[in-house]
Amino acid sequence: MPEVTLLVLDDDPPPRLGRLTGRARVVHADESTLAGLLPSADVLLVWDFLSDAVRLAWPGEGPRPRWVHTASAGVDRLMCPELAASDTVVTNARGVFDQPIAEYVGALVLAMAKDLPRTLALQSERVWRHRETQRVAGTRACVVGSGPIGRAIAATLKALGITTALVGRTARAGVHGPADLGRLMARADWVVCAAPLTDDTRGMFDARLFGMMQPSARFINVGRGQLVVEDDLAEALAKRWIAGAALDVFEHEPLPAESALWDAPGLIVSPHMSGDIVGWRDELSRQFVEFFEKWESGEPLPNVVDKKRGYVPGH
Amino acid sequence: MPEVTLLVLDDDPPPRLGRLTGRARVVHADESTLAGLLPSADVLLVWDFLSDAVRLAWPGEGPRPRWVHTASAGVDRLMCPELAASDTVVTNARGVFDQPIAEYVGALVLAMAKDLPRTLALQSERVWRHRETQRVAGTRACVVGSGPIGRAIAATLKALGITTALVGRTARAGVHGPADLGRLMARADWVVCAAPLTDDTRGMFDARLFGMMQPSARFINVGRGQLVVEDDLAEALAKRWIAGAALDVFEHEPLPAESALWDAPGLIVSPHMSGDIVGWRDELSRQFVEFFEKWESGEPLPNVVDKKRGYVPGH
Repeated sequence: MPEVTLLVLDDDPPPRLGRLTGRARVVHADESTLAGLLPSADVLLVWDFLSDAVRLAWPGEGPRPRWVHTASAGVDRLMCPELAASDTVVTNARGVFDQPIAEYVGALVLAMAKDLPRTLALQSERVWRHRETQRVAGTRACVVGSGPIGRAIAATLKALGITTALVGRTARAGVHGPADLGRLMARADWVVCAAPLTDDTRGMFDARLFGMMQPSARFINVGRGQLVVEDDLAEALAKRWIAGAALDVFEHEPLPAESALWDAPGLIVSPHMSGDIVGWRDELSRQFVEFFEKWESGEPLPNVVDKKRGYVPGH
Repeated sequence: MPEVTLLVLDDDPPPRLGRLTGRARVVHADESTLAGLLPSADVLLVWDFLSDAVRLAWPGEGPRPRWVHTASAGVDRLMCPELAASDTVVTNARGVFDQPIAEYVGALVLAMAKDLPRTLALQSERVWRHRETQRVAGTRACVVGSGPIGRAIAATLKALGITTALVGRTARAGVHGPADLGRLMARADWVVCAAPLTDDTRGMFDARLFGMMQPSARFINVGRGQLVVEDDLAEALAKRWIAGAALDVFEHEPLPAESALWDAPGLIVSPHMSGDIVGWRDELSRQFVEFFEKWESGEPLPNVVDKKRGYVPGH
């Protein structure tokens, strides 16, 4: 009988845990059973990363997992003061989503520049209407969030000829600090949010920032819904403060059918899928098994989250 | 009174001809007056490049313009045996459309990979439906047409991490010859047509070539409609021989409202606009004035079309 108990919070099981046979006792939990199972677990894999159950069930004291891994880039849904204060190590899926999300942002930028949503709408009406569209090479982007996802987005936009500035929590080589944000947003054609959700960033994109943007500019959010004051964005679009936006993440997911965002003018709504390419679950599971093998052999874990800051500190 | 007569076939006039004041007598023609005005013109600017009037009105013998410039990349609409046999020099707008069309193809590739048309359709129904989408980095493209437009498309696709092969009329460094086309199409995820329309290329994309493609592959045409046998493409889509397509050009333009292509499964229809960015008319006019000044001073003209081949020979 293996000595290690691996607790997995999931709806459907990760595809590669068969590799751990004989090395870990794998126990599956759902939202209702998690609290009861946590004290006996050595490791917790948060596979159902859209759940708030960990934050709600995390024990204040007594036995608890020594290591928690989440199959997501953001850790906002699981973090709570008790987990932050504990000596439990938290790791995330940093690296898996970078390139897919960068491509997704590239798709949105090009689709908006080339007026593709209107082309598709006209096609459905069988209407041939020529328009002039935008050249993206030579435009300017401001990418907020200087982790691997933000950096991958910046690399893709630069490859398309877009002059791109990165904004992070602290200024460093190649990265602007928060003090530059207003100035960079004011001259950007594209503002892309790929920041982690922390107490510092919650609601940062509000009427004040949208008001600084150019009327021809567009806003894209692939971070977390709570980074944006959604009512302020809807108003900025309705009043034509900005020309368009695309949201892949929302304060409430799934976005309720009655939300006014579904038909906000110039807004593209997608269902939190920017990083989810074919094979992504397999890749997330492969990454966890790799980390588990390091943990098992006492090697240092990659992707260790700074629990105070709420993300893996970068370079 | 200037000695040079510049005849302009246009619907609305090119924006920069004011620069030629005192240097050319500018005469505007439409489709009905062109034949009568051609014999007295030194230079013909084909500004209305969607018209077939030049081919229909070109004089078999007697006086005619010494130079014809068309504000388009393709010369198929104006070329006729009499013009090809004459000593009239034909130039085109090579260079103006390269980067815009490359971006447009990038937009289509990414939109199809990320399932954007379906996202927009679901949005209009207020339906939240997560899907897994495709990574484009690591996929393969085959770009048919090795002129500046094809090369710009290849550069953009390569910048997105797509392994891209170029196919031209003759094999040379970095360009495959027609003999490789079937093999390259059979393993491509993206087949992009940016070839000139000539007697050799007319109808080249037919059931035989579509039948060679992978069921997961997609076809994009930004060249000329007549390069594709449209019924064969519609059948390839209906029978799921290929996963999707995007046509910006058609055998008959505007595409008639009753055409079955408007709702062919997996087909994106756009109204011949891939190269037409904001400012394109100004850029075309600027290019013509630049060429006119060279012609006036006896310098060699750029972009001279090989009238037998039907395009500007490349490098």
